[in-house]
Amino acid sequence: MKVGILGGGQLARMLALAGHPLGIECVVLDPSPDACAQVATSHIIGSYEDNASLERLVRSTQVVTYEFENVPSQSVRFLEEQIPVYPPAEALALSRDRLTEKGLFRDLGIPTVPFAAVDSREALVEAVESLGLPALVKTRCLGYDGKGQVLIRSRKDISRAWESLGGVPCILEGFAEFSREVSIVAVRSRSGEIACYPLSENTHQGGILHYSCSCEADPLQQEAEAMAGLLLERLCYVGTLALELFVTPQGLVANEMAPRVHNTGHWTIEGAGVSQFENHLRAVAGFPLGDTSRRGHSAMVNFIGAAPAQEAVLKIPHSHYHSYGKSPRPGRKIGHGTICAPSKEEMLRGLEHLLALAPLAPLAPLVR
Amino acid sequence: MKVGILGGGQLARMLALAGHPLGIECVVLDPSPDACAQVATSHIIGSYEDNASLERLVRSTQVVTYEFENVPSQSVRFLEEQIPVYPPAEALALSRDRLTEKGLFRDLGIPTVPFAAVDSREALVEAVESLGLPALVKTRCLGYDGKGQVLIRSRKDISRAWESLGGVPCILEGFAEFSREVSIVAVRSRSGEIACYPLSENTHQGGILHYSCSCEADPLQQEAEAMAGLLLERLCYVGTLALELFVTPQGLVANEMAPRVHNTGHWTIEGAGVSQFENHLRAVAGFPLGDTSRRGHSAMVNFIGAAPAQEAVLKIPHSHYHSYGKSPRPGRKIGHGTICAPSKEEMLRGLEHLLALAPLAPLAPLVR
Repeated sequence: MKVGILGGGQLARMLALAGHPLGIECVVLDPSPDACAQVATSHIIGSYEDNASLERLVRSTQVVTYEFENVPSQSVRFLEEQIPVYPPAEALALSRDRLTEKGLFRDLGIPTVPFAAVDSREALVEAVESLGLPALVKTRCLGYDGKGQVLIRSRKDISRAWESLGGVPCILEGFAEFSREVSIVAVRSRSGEIACYPLSENTHQGGILHYSCSCEADPLQQEAEAMAGLLLERLCYVGTLALELFVTPQGLVANEMAPRVHNTGHWTIEGAGVSQFENHLRAVAGFPLGDTSRRGHSAMVNFIGAAPAQEAVLKIPHSHYHSYGKSPRPGRKIGHGTICAPSKEEMLRGLEHLLALAPLAPLAPLVR
Repeated sequence: MKVGILGGGQLARMLALAGHPLGIECVVLDPSPDACAQVATSHIIGSYEDNASLERLVRSTQVVTYEFENVPSQSVRFLEEQIPVYPPAEALALSRDRLTEKGLFRDLGIPTVPFAAVDSREALVEAVESLGLPALVKTRCLGYDGKGQVLIRSRKDISRAWESLGGVPCILEGFAEFSREVSIVAVRSRSGEIACYPLSENTHQGGILHYSCSCEADPLQQEAEAMAGLLLERLCYVGTLALELFVTPQGLVANEMAPRVHNTGHWTIEGAGVSQFENHLRAVAGFPLGDTSRRGHSAMVNFIGAAPAQEAVLKIPHSHYHSYGKSPRPGRKIGHGTICAPSKEEMLRGLEHLLALAPLAPLAPLVR
C-alpha cells in the first residue's frame, strides 16, 4: 500500500519509518529537494499548489495525508475529488484558523480562553476593552512555534502590535492562569475506533516546545480524553490529532489542536505500545489501531538549532536518539532525544542529563 | 554517518530502519535490483565479488558490515584493506564453515554435539562408525535454513547422503537429545562493552525457524551469556552475534553461531529496550550500547511463503506487523508478526492467534 504525504519533513520521515514494517510505503510531496523524509520515501519535488505534482501524488498512492496544517485549501479540494484524504479537510480548515478553531471548541462545550475576532486596529482596541489585559493578539492563520503573535501588556502596545502582524485578520486571546501545559494525542480509525495516549506534560520556551514528559495516571486524563473524543467524533476524524491544553484552577482549557502527528507525542515511539506515527498510518490505511498504553516512564527533549553528539546522548541510561537528517539552523528542530525508563526516578535523572546536553538555543524573538 | 551493508534483504532493511533515527544512513550492496532494503537505503546493484562495486561501497561509507555470513573471503579482505569491517573477518570465516565453527566452540570449552570432518565417502563411513547413528551429514559451508544437510538413520543411507550433497567437504554431527532449542543474541561494542538479550526459545520445522518466544528469567541465561561472552572476547567481536543452543539433560550444547543480527532476535524490536538491529549499528558505529532488557512478554512468528493480511494480524491485541516488502515464494521468509504483551498469558493467547494466521507453508524437503 502507498500513502501520500503532503510535506516531507521530520513528521513525514517518522511516519515513513513506521510505515515500512506495516507494508506501507510513503510518497511525499515537498518542494524542497532536501526534504529529510526522502531517505525512506519516494519524493515528488513540487509545490503544494501545483496540480501536476498533486496529480502525480494521486496516481502513485491510495490515500493521502499531511504533516502540516497549512496545506492550501484548494489543493486539498483538488485531492479530495480523486482520492481519500485523511484527516478530513474540515479538520484542516477549522484548525488552521485560530478563530474557527476556538469557535469549534466553544460549540462543543470545550473550555477555551476568552477570545474575540480582530479585523482592524479599531476592533483590536474594542477587543482589548472587552477582554482586558494582558492579552495575546495572534494572526488567525499561519502561526506556529510562537510565530505570528504579540503580547499586549498595556493599551499603548496596541498600535505597534497590530502593525507588527501586518494588519492581517487576527484573534485576541485572554490569558489563562495555568499551572502546567499538557496535551492529549488521540487517534480515530476509519471504522470509528478511538484510542488516546496518556497525557503529555509540555514545557515551552519562546513559544517552542522544549521537552515533554508522559504522565502517569494523571487525574485529568479522563477529562482530556472526553474533549478529544468530542473533536474526533464531530469531525468524523481519521488519523492522529493533538489537543494542547492548559491546566487551570477551573480545570482544562483548550489552547489549540493540530490535525496531525504532534511533537508532544514523539515520546510514544519508545514509550507506548504503538507510536502515534504507526497509529496514524494504521488509521488512514484502514487497519485496526494499536495499543496506546504507556511502557515505562518517558521524556522527550527537542534538539533545536543544534544536536548533541550521538555518543553523548546514548551513554545516558535508557536513552534514544532521533536524528531528522536536517542541517542545523538557529531555531530549527533537527532531532530529539527520548528517555524511556522503568521508573520515574530513572526517567527524571535521564531527563536532567539530556537537558544539559540540549539546552534551548538563544531564544528567538517572539515576533518574526 | 554512512554504514555499508553487504546484502540488501530483510536484515539490512531492518538495520536501515533502525539507522535513520541514529543519524546513520545505510548503503547496501546487493546484486538484486529488487533488494527489499532499498526502500530505506542507497542501493548499489552489483556482485559481492565485483571490486568496482566494493570500491563504490567503500567510497560512500565509513564502516562496512553484512547481513549474511557467506560473503566471499576475498571480498572481505579487499574491503578490510580500505575500511573497518565489523564483525571481524575471522568471525565470518570461522562461522561459515561448520567444522571450524565447532572447532572454535571446542577450543573455548563450549559443549557441542560430537562431530567429525568428512572429506570422502570413506571418511563418512568411518565417521558413522565412530559417532553412531542417527547422525546428520552437513556441507561444511553454504548451509542455512535446513539446506545442505541429510539425516542418516542407517548405514544404507550413507552413499545416497554423500552423493546428494555433491561430494563437497562435509561434517558429520551426532544427535543431541534436547528438550528445547534456545538462542542467545549478544552484542559487543568497539570499546569492548558486552550486552546480552534474554534467551529466545525457538521452534523450527523442516530446518526453518517458525516462531520464537522471549524467555522470562531463564535459569540457563547465565550459562548462555558466559558462552556468548567467550566467543565475543575470543573474536574481538564488534556487532551482534547469535548463538543457537540445545537444552540437553547435560546442560547447554552449542549448535551454531551467526555473526550477524538473527531471526531469533526479531522480537527485540518491540520486546527489548533497544533492538538487536539498533544495537548492531550502535556497535559498528562506535556508539554506546543500549538496554537489552525485556519489555513485556514477546513472541515472534515468521511469515513463510505467504503473509497474512495486516488487518487480520493487527486486530490481535498487542500485535505488530513486519512486512519485508518481498514477493511471496514458497519457503521464503517475507515478514513476521510479533506479540508484545504485558503478561505471559496475553502473549500466549496472541501467539496462538498469530500461529493460526501464519501456519508453516507445506514443508520443503530437507535436501534442496
